[in-house]
Amino acid sequence: MNRALSIRSNKNGSSSSAAPRHGFSLSSLRGTVQPELSKKLYKLIKSENHLIQSYEQAGKERLSIASQLSDWGEATNDDAISDISDKIGVLLSELGEQEDLYAHGIDDSRAILKAIRNTEKSVQPSRDHKAKIMDEIAKLKAKEPESAKLVTLEQELVRAEAENLVAEAQLTNVTRQKMKEAYATEFAATIERAEKQIILARHGRRLLNLIDDTPVIPGDMRAPYEYTQQARQILNDAEDDLRDWRPELEDVPSHAQLENNLMPSSASQHRQTADGSVTDDTTIQHDHSAGQQEEPLDQSRISSGTSVTTGPVAHTAYAPSEAGTSAVA
Amino acid sequence: MNRALSIRSNKNGSSSSAAPRHGFSLSSLRGTVQPELSKKLYKLIKSENHLIQSYEQAGKERLSIASQLSDWGEATNDDAISDISDKIGVLLSELGEQEDLYAHGIDDSRAILKAIRNTEKSVQPSRDHKAKIMDEIAKLKAKEPESAKLVTLEQELVRAEAENLVAEAQLTNVTRQKMKEAYATEFAATIERAEKQIILARHGRRLLNLIDDTPVIPGDMRAPYEYTQQARQILNDAEDDLRDWRPELEDVPSHAQLENNLMPSSASQHRQTADGSVTDDTTIQHDHSAGQQEEPLDQSRISSGTSVTTGPVAHTAYAPSEAGTSAVA
Repeated sequence: MNRALSIRSNKNGSSSSAAPRHGFSLSSLRGTVQPELSKKLYKLIKSENHLIQSYEQAGKERLSIASQLSDWGEATNDDAISDISDKIGVLLSELGEQEDLYAHGIDDSRAILKAIRNTEKSVQPSRDHKAKIMDEIAKLKAKEPESAKLVTLEQELVRAEAENLVAEAQLTNVTRQKMKEAYATEFAATIERAEKQIILARHGRRLLNLIDDTPVIPGDMRAPYEYTQQARQILNDAEDDLRDWRPELEDVPSHAQLENNLMPSSASQHRQTADGSVTDDTTIQHDHSAGQQEEPLDQSRISSGTSVTTGPVAHTAYAPSEAGTSAVA
Repeated sequence: MNRALSIRSNKNGSSSSAAPRHGFSLSSLRGTVQPELSKKLYKLIKSENHLIQSYEQAGKERLSIASQLSDWGEATNDDAISDISDKIGVLLSELGEQEDLYAHGIDDSRAILKAIRNTEKSVQPSRDHKAKIMDEIAKLKAKEPESAKLVTLEQELVRAEAENLVAEAQLTNVTRQKMKEAYATEFAATIERAEKQIILARHGRRLLNLIDDTPVIPGDMRAPYEYTQQARQILNDAEDDLRDWRPELEDVPSHAQLENNLMPSSASQHRQTADGSVTDDTTIQHDHSAGQQEEPLDQSRISSGTSVTTGPVAHTAYAPSEAGTSAVA
């Protein structure tokens, strides 16, 4: 990982948040029908689709290669190569199956990101509306500072601001929750594919050890192949290991208890008393999670220097995940 | 792995070993210039190229998505999302890098398979030559059983058979050695990608826990984001873990000590005494491996019911690999 600790592309250039909010960029056809606010995520979601297709393709090629390897092995008329190539083929095709499942996992993550994009899309008009009124007020103040219409516009602005406050709250709520959920899902899928493929590959190397590659001289006969049973057993072992596999992940707990309106589940009950100034976690009672324990971010879990090693065993190096709250993936 | 324990496609159909050895199948344009013997592997090697391209493509898409995610995060103007999306982007781009390295690993394996294919290709004329002479003899015996040409042909056949004996020995020697080596390489690459991606994904989930997704109500201000340092540390941890990663694989030792002529390294010295009947391993002295220990396949390593779990720690469940012989990958 010999790269900078950031991969941001426009460090010094104009960030898109400084770009005009109205109108559309014509630098790409893709996303031109998207409002500015959702354009980046719209493209990202498109790119994820290409990624998914690459893995689906890889899975398909694997299955084909697996079958070709088995057929080639049979055609060699060498019992050892025939048996092992067929069984390696079985493992390879399962490896391909895992690529396909991985593609599905990324697709699940992608679907979660769409929730953010859709909210972005729906928040844009609220921002535009507010900006338009502010614009009109500024212009009118310059032209006709005594105009009676200013009062009307100021009243409209207050309403637009109230509406926008809700929209922005909805946006930050859905963005944080879904960003967390989407990548927790994607990383879980990455770990699942990896752990299962390790199982397959390690058993694959065991299989290869059943091939006696001691060279022969011309006219020499190979000793008869005697490992059919062992090879079969290795496949059984692989199947058992895959069946016994369980995800062992550090929890990525979500503290979001969102209603369909993207407000905290308690907000409707508390709105009248909270009057927009609720900043302390403990003052928000989560009516729908009475039995669940709500905890603030626990800094002790983010201890520095913690080493993540591969495999479930190493997982115990972490402090046990906190209880309660709806864990993601 | 709910599949049959074989994936052979032509269990009951005509196997290609029964197919005519002369002439070419026209069922596919690909491989029509290949002799029958190398046609299957020729196609398989082509397919591996497509597989490699799929992974290269996946790697490229990942890099692009990683950068898009970081840019999107910055545009949200949410410090938490901005920082975490950028760091998740760094991990994702490294994930993509690993796909690319994996593609290279498969390419290495593919190059090894080519050695088998090339030998297959070169052995075909020897088989054809022998078959042709046998054919001529059979025809002549039927037509002119007393022909003097039969004696000449029988002499030619003995020479052709001797040549073919060498060719077939070369073929089995290279096939077993390279098959073992190619897939040991491929499985090693699979394990490397998997273990490194597990490291990245587990640290990725740690990063996500720095996002406080407790929902806010309209007008509420988010608490300032305070985890810049911890997020940075997680990236450092990931970098350290990747740097400290070492392959821990069960050995796939090769017993092949092949000369460039694809004969055992001792064969040239022993040919005069071995006269084609050396079947006992111990009678073959490997002149070029005096310091190395040569062992027959050790059945105890193929114990049934052995469970392969993921990760280096579990590796100790295996008996230590035997010493000596040139280990693959």
